[in-house]
Amino acid sequence: MYVIIVYDVNVERVNQVKKFLRRYLTWIQNSVFEGELSEADLEEVKLGLSDIIDGSEDMVVIYRLPSNRSLKKDVLGIDKSCSSEII
Amino acid sequence: MYVIIVYDVNVERVNQVKKFLRRYLTWIQNSVFEGELSEADLEEVKLGLSDIIDGSEDMVVIYRLPSNRSLKKDVLGIDKSCSSEII
Repeated sequence: MYVIIVYDVNVERVNQVKKFLRRYLTWIQNSVFEGELSEADLEEVKLGLSDIIDGSEDMVVIYRLPSNRSLKKDVLGIDKSCSSEII
Repeated sequence: MYVIIVYDVNVERVNQVKKFLRRYLTWIQNSVFEGELSEADLEEVKLGLSDIIDGSEDMVVIYRLPSNRSLKKDVLGIDKSCSSEII
């Protein structure tokens, strides 16, 4: 399946979330990742994120699609995912 | 069509982008909106955003789908889009 993950987490945990998601997905911009995931990987991602975030103040949204065939993407402004980035 | 818009813009412009997108879409979390848009509205949104953002440092990604029928959504943590929110 294809997933887009967006997160709004406390600054104390933001780098941990980013570092974790990099193992599975492509970084798009601040707090956004996307990519292909298997069902098993999705479960791993959900469990991993649940361990990192504080459910009382952080939020993660996982959008899932069967594939990215019908997904179109427009970028306005600078495409940050193309530039090198250090975490 | 159904759209998900994510943005990573300078703090100086973030409220302007948020206020503008609220006219068309539903706020989901920090820097994320989604909802149904006509082709005409999408063009208006693109033009409006292009006027607000600084293309040399801001980035907006518009994900487009024919509909939200195949789109599934999981929320981990607190669902901020359900709480009242003042801008």
